[in-house]
Amino acid sequence: VIAYGVVRESGRARVGALVDGRVLDLAAALEDEVFGGPSLNPFMARGPGFWRETHARVKELDAPVMAPDDVEPLMPFEVADYVDFFSSLHHATNMGRMFRPDAEPLLPNWRHLPVAYHGRSGTVVPSGTPVRRPCGQRPGPEYGPSLRLDIELEAGFVVGVPSALGEPVPLERALDHVFGMVLVNDWSARDIQAWEYQPLGPFLGKSFATSVSPWVVPLTELDGRRASTAPQEPEPLPYLREQPWAYDIALEVELNGTVIARTNARHLYWSIAQQVAHLTVNGASLRTGDLLATGTISGPSPESRGSLIELSWNGQEPIELPGGDTRTFLEDGDEVVLRGDGIGEVRGRIEPARLGATR
Amino acid sequence: VIAYGVVRESGRARVGALVDGRVLDLAAALEDEVFGGPSLNPFMARGPGFWRETHARVKELDAPVMAPDDVEPLMPFEVADYVDFFSSLHHATNMGRMFRPDAEPLLPNWRHLPVAYHGRSGTVVPSGTPVRRPCGQRPGPEYGPSLRLDIELEAGFVVGVPSALGEPVPLERALDHVFGMVLVNDWSARDIQAWEYQPLGPFLGKSFATSVSPWVVPLTELDGRRASTAPQEPEPLPYLREQPWAYDIALEVELNGTVIARTNARHLYWSIAQQVAHLTVNGASLRTGDLLATGTISGPSPESRGSLIELSWNGQEPIELPGGDTRTFLEDGDEVVLRGDGIGEVRGRIEPARLGATR
Repeated sequence: VIAYGVVRESGRARVGALVDGRVLDLAAALEDEVFGGPSLNPFMARGPGFWRETHARVKELDAPVMAPDDVEPLMPFEVADYVDFFSSLHHATNMGRMFRPDAEPLLPNWRHLPVAYHGRSGTVVPSGTPVRRPCGQRPGPEYGPSLRLDIELEAGFVVGVPSALGEPVPLERALDHVFGMVLVNDWSARDIQAWEYQPLGPFLGKSFATSVSPWVVPLTELDGRRASTAPQEPEPLPYLREQPWAYDIALEVELNGTVIARTNARHLYWSIAQQVAHLTVNGASLRTGDLLATGTISGPSPESRGSLIELSWNGQEPIELPGGDTRTFLEDGDEVVLRGDGIGEVRGRIEPARLGATR
Repeated sequence: VIAYGVVRESGRARVGALVDGRVLDLAAALEDEVFGGPSLNPFMARGPGFWRETHARVKELDAPVMAPDDVEPLMPFEVADYVDFFSSLHHATNMGRMFRPDAEPLLPNWRHLPVAYHGRSGTVVPSGTPVRRPCGQRPGPEYGPSLRLDIELEAGFVVGVPSALGEPVPLERALDHVFGMVLVNDWSARDIQAWEYQPLGPFLGKSFATSVSPWVVPLTELDGRRASTAPQEPEPLPYLREQPWAYDIALEVELNGTVIARTNARHLYWSIAQQVAHLTVNGASLRTGDLLATGTISGPSPESRGSLIELSWNGQEPIELPGGDTRTFLEDGDEVVLRGDGIGEVRGRIEPARLGATR
């Protein structure tokens, strides 16, 4: 697998390629200004033809190699807008069962459109950035540190080629706009979220941090991993209609060194092509650097759930760790690593809340 | 009133000041690089000391004047994150009465925190940009142009000074981060919004366009217009507690040349200082260019409502225009102008939907 990122060596940030575990200095090797800066955005904006050409050259490259231990992976791209979808059927169903136990778990719109909301672009951080436990209003209301701090295992797609305002991107051209994929941990404070989210959706329960993996895997590297999925029922409206598919990528959640969940991106109901077509159907434009995350990826089995709230069934069934330790939600000092087969990893450790922030 | 914006004259974009209706070329007059580019962001990032110093110099300036007719006002700043609040008590109450007629109009959280969600930064456009009627999924679901296209009269506050991730901005220092105010028309497709918004909030019903006025009025120019407002009941948590206040700014909505609503920013329940303190209480950082809009500003009387859905009471009471014309929601060709006393105006005209976008 070849992937692209931004690395700092000797104090200078530039674009690098990860090839079979070696980091190549693309800025030095390819002598193109799009590789010389501290983000992938100029490269991503150039479009599929240039991406393919670069990819072919990287495969043959006898480029300066930076020792992986000597380079620091940085935030790989400047985030334009961050959109978080809700595209896993099992995740949406689990959340419905927990919070609306007497009703149909899926809301009426769920099978008709990829539900989504905008997240905070300015707090998307690279893997390894410590995550401070957020304070805020918990149900009551009362002020204090979140007591239900959670993870969300997601894939994120990064837009390369922008689109024009007022012009929807048709589904069959959607992938021409998408550069590649990262892993996303959409950290969530469930207690803050529960109190604030009606009627306009999640805000502070999500906006304190969202972590992404440092190496963006271009879609060309994932072509061979497309898998057919079950027909969508009911059939979506024409602008969302395609042969159902998803990427077959094994995923896992590790908490303090123990794998606590194993799942797969093929459990997603809505594809990235459908997400792009939906996001732009109203004429909204895409920008280079837009991040489209899938929402928590959960599979059908209890051990394939991508969040602690699902794994612990709303805190009622603690997750068992080695040595008799258990978790419902995250404790200070906990480290979470999300991994994708061939996609890399995204990690983050919880720091204690900053006390005394209130007056 | 002195306000700041970006103008293009002879093909070159740079920062200008609007002083008593004349446009001054700040890039030429002040010879500072922060005025030479196509956005206010570098100027705004410099902070309150530099803002005050510049303001004092502009008042005394014998600067090159550009004829207002010769300059084209552009988007005044690069939007980092766009957050839309829901801070008008009367607006929130009206929406509750219309959509939950048998329940308490305000949801339980409303008086405890300034409810908000993230909007789409990439589709914030300057005054005068045509607004194409969006297509999408209407209730049914069925695909088609929005049939309930609406406006929202809002004020927007623009962040100048960033804050650090993980460090809440206390209420008493909140205004040091805010550069100034614009008017915002948060165009809304009510039918698309109604179908999509559960459980994660508005998405495509809002993301097709948000218009802002071209001249940013610095807060220093508004100091004299602060007015005390009624005590907040119940008293908010300590991190949101202050002497209640709002800006006393008369606002109006004009539709095709007829003023259809008159209201005032003093009807807002939550202040911009409270909004900044709340937005950052979880450690979320501010960036230069963040846009914090108030949400629709409605007053207590029927004619002081800031959206068509309120003015027409969900389409049941058409708004009467001269010549026997009526409106519930916007028709193609309609032009809307929002004005604020001393704040300027933001305008936009509705273009027909692009048909054939679906397959």
